[in-house]
Amino acid sequence: MKASILTVGDEILIGQIVDTNSSCIAQQLGDQGISVCEMRSTGDTREAITGALDELFALSDLIIITGGLGPTKDDVTKHTLAAYFGATRMAQHEPTLRHIKKLLGKRGIALGELNQNQALVPDTCEALLNLAGTAPGMWFEKDGKLAVSLPGVPHEMEYLMANEVIPRLKKHFSLNKIYHKNIATAGIAESTLAEAIAAWENALPPYLRLAYLPSLSGVRLRLSCYTADAHANIADEVEAYLRQLQPLIPSCIVGYDGDTLESAVGQLLKARGATMATAESCTGGRIAALITAQPGASAYFKGSIVAYSNDLKIRALGVFRDEIKEHGSISKVVVEQMARGAQYALHADYTVATSGIAGPDGGSPGRPVGTVWIAVATPDKVTSHKLNFGGDRERIILRASYSALNLLRLALTDDGNAC
Amino acid sequence: MKASILTVGDEILIGQIVDTNSSCIAQQLGDQGISVCEMRSTGDTREAITGALDELFALSDLIIITGGLGPTKDDVTKHTLAAYFGATRMAQHEPTLRHIKKLLGKRGIALGELNQNQALVPDTCEALLNLAGTAPGMWFEKDGKLAVSLPGVPHEMEYLMANEVIPRLKKHFSLNKIYHKNIATAGIAESTLAEAIAAWENALPPYLRLAYLPSLSGVRLRLSCYTADAHANIADEVEAYLRQLQPLIPSCIVGYDGDTLESAVGQLLKARGATMATAESCTGGRIAALITAQPGASAYFKGSIVAYSNDLKIRALGVFRDEIKEHGSISKVVVEQMARGAQYALHADYTVATSGIAGPDGGSPGRPVGTVWIAVATPDKVTSHKLNFGGDRERIILRASYSALNLLRLALTDDGNAC
Repeated sequence: MKASILTVGDEILIGQIVDTNSSCIAQQLGDQGISVCEMRSTGDTREAITGALDELFALSDLIIITGGLGPTKDDVTKHTLAAYFGATRMAQHEPTLRHIKKLLGKRGIALGELNQNQALVPDTCEALLNLAGTAPGMWFEKDGKLAVSLPGVPHEMEYLMANEVIPRLKKHFSLNKIYHKNIATAGIAESTLAEAIAAWENALPPYLRLAYLPSLSGVRLRLSCYTADAHANIADEVEAYLRQLQPLIPSCIVGYDGDTLESAVGQLLKARGATMATAESCTGGRIAALITAQPGASAYFKGSIVAYSNDLKIRALGVFRDEIKEHGSISKVVVEQMARGAQYALHADYTVATSGIAGPDGGSPGRPVGTVWIAVATPDKVTSHKLNFGGDRERIILRASYSALNLLRLALTDDGNAC
Repeated sequence: MKASILTVGDEILIGQIVDTNSSCIAQQLGDQGISVCEMRSTGDTREAITGALDELFALSDLIIITGGLGPTKDDVTKHTLAAYFGATRMAQHEPTLRHIKKLLGKRGIALGELNQNQALVPDTCEALLNLAGTAPGMWFEKDGKLAVSLPGVPHEMEYLMANEVIPRLKKHFSLNKIYHKNIATAGIAESTLAEAIAAWENALPPYLRLAYLPSLSGVRLRLSCYTADAHANIADEVEAYLRQLQPLIPSCIVGYDGDTLESAVGQLLKARGATMATAESCTGGRIAALITAQPGASAYFKGSIVAYSNDLKIRALGVFRDEIKEHGSISKVVVEQMARGAQYALHADYTVATSGIAGPDGGSPGRPVGTVWIAVATPDKVTSHKLNFGGDRERIILRASYSALNLLRLALTDDGNAC
């Protein structure tokens, strides 16, 4: 079964918002063995939507449409779908109207016309009650093919996918699974990684496909088996290949599938019953935000001191004023004192500290924008690294944050063979 | 002139990565008056790419293609383009080869075959030297239409767009400007906003189009003038409409065009010569990260104490242990003490503090997941608000962070008419 995804909205075509819905929908379909053959974004005009539906139905059996269902008048999707799927009138969806009234009542807002109209759906669709918002989803069938229209607000789309769309797809179709295995790596460049594992990659059987997915946190490898009737023991087979891969890139493998640097650090800390904290200058709280984005982080994360000013590095982290005077705040000695100071101030077993120049200003010939010192303190010792990152401010901050997490991960695995 | 954007890569179709390139490209084209009529993502097979090129050339004069040019072997884009654009052979692009050698030399890596191949391009294209990476861009012309292929790594694509593609487009075409004006709002729901400004919106002339773009930080309004020959005085005309809009939603307008909550807070602080700091529990450093993502934040941002543990709230922020015992850490009195404590501990004029339950665990019937207390301390007083956010952990953390920034913004504007 093939699917396609259609995103409707001028705000996407002019680049004002990034379409995150399509990747989320593709993941959920992929988990059910439904592969996506195309994604499109088109403007919110009748012609564009109708044309896209015609072309996507020619390619696929299922179209998931998002966007164009908000309460305001820049939305034409619903009326275009009504015409496309031969509706004779708009019908009130009573469960949606009751839900909207209840929702507004809670907030003490009277039911306005805009919200009332959201309960109207074409009479040829099955309405999907949206408990995460006000606009209902719409399920259309035509000539044995399906189109499902969902609101563009991400958490509303996610609610409807999980609670209405996926369960209905499971009921209607017997689905083949696609097998994917992801390997998260850190601290190794794509081309270095490719050369290190070339022999292993070339020996993979033809039904296993390998992809390299670089990102700021590291290169993710993805092994996919697209065979319609994947071997019953494909998981075991892949495990055997992974056992061969591991020694080729020791200490670069962060984890598998949903694992990330931040979740790997959390797992290592929990396994040791240890705690961590951060002392951040140039990363400005980003490392703490990455760590605390993990559910259950309070089990191992004590907190952070974001010390943007030298004054605060001295008072809150115990850095010596004289060291800052002599070496500058972006130096080995200062970043190591920050990491040590955070262990004391925040009562943590492990800490990471950062100090650098995120730019765009503040660089100098000997110390350009992108220069970052990172220190890791463990119960045994403190070590530090001077790194140079390219790119703009956002990129430098994120790469420094991920590098700090990777250095902490390596300290927690006690592995000297750092990538 | 119409453009379309084609993103190549299975990693997008399976939802593993979010396509951020398309929105970035669309913005840059839009700034030059080139409107994008369609975006597509397709798999990295010869058939899919060729089919997409045929269909997109039927719709548009320019196709910007990203992805499928990395050093590793999962890329087929370059060879498909060579065939599509009638190349007879692959030619070495000497500036690219010199650049790759220099780049690898700096890192002490020998030139491998994978990297050497990146300097090969179809002989029918003009190669675009990529100083941000190794894979060159490729500029093809066919039957008076253009296709430009760029690497998928975002900062490499951005480099080539800014330094090679846009300058060439400007030289080749006389471009009409599209006029956009963005109004960033905060603290007001989309439907409430729509009803508050309905009369104003209905009185807009037909050549001005209004769109509502909701996000976690607030609803952005976008006024667009698509007329090919936009009035010379369109900017003045829009200014006049904005003056009418302002009193309809007092204190909800954060700023215009590129302004955001975090940049608005920065501007207000700089105008007052004042400083700020944060004391974060449930937001885990996210507010500090948002603030420090702004270039020049060190002029007004002192730092942050991320106090995940009660122990740290007591020691670092001076919260009374007895208050935590009596009221719990998610309470008015504790969050106000945190904000006050941060003023003293971080020597800041203004502070925001957060304490709440980001979930998924930790909720109770009387205090569900999503309950967040936010306090703002100014030199004059401390105030606090209890808010309830829906959604998952990430959403709750971000909404709490943006709400905190908006409350700080309102405190800095001394405006009692909070939305």
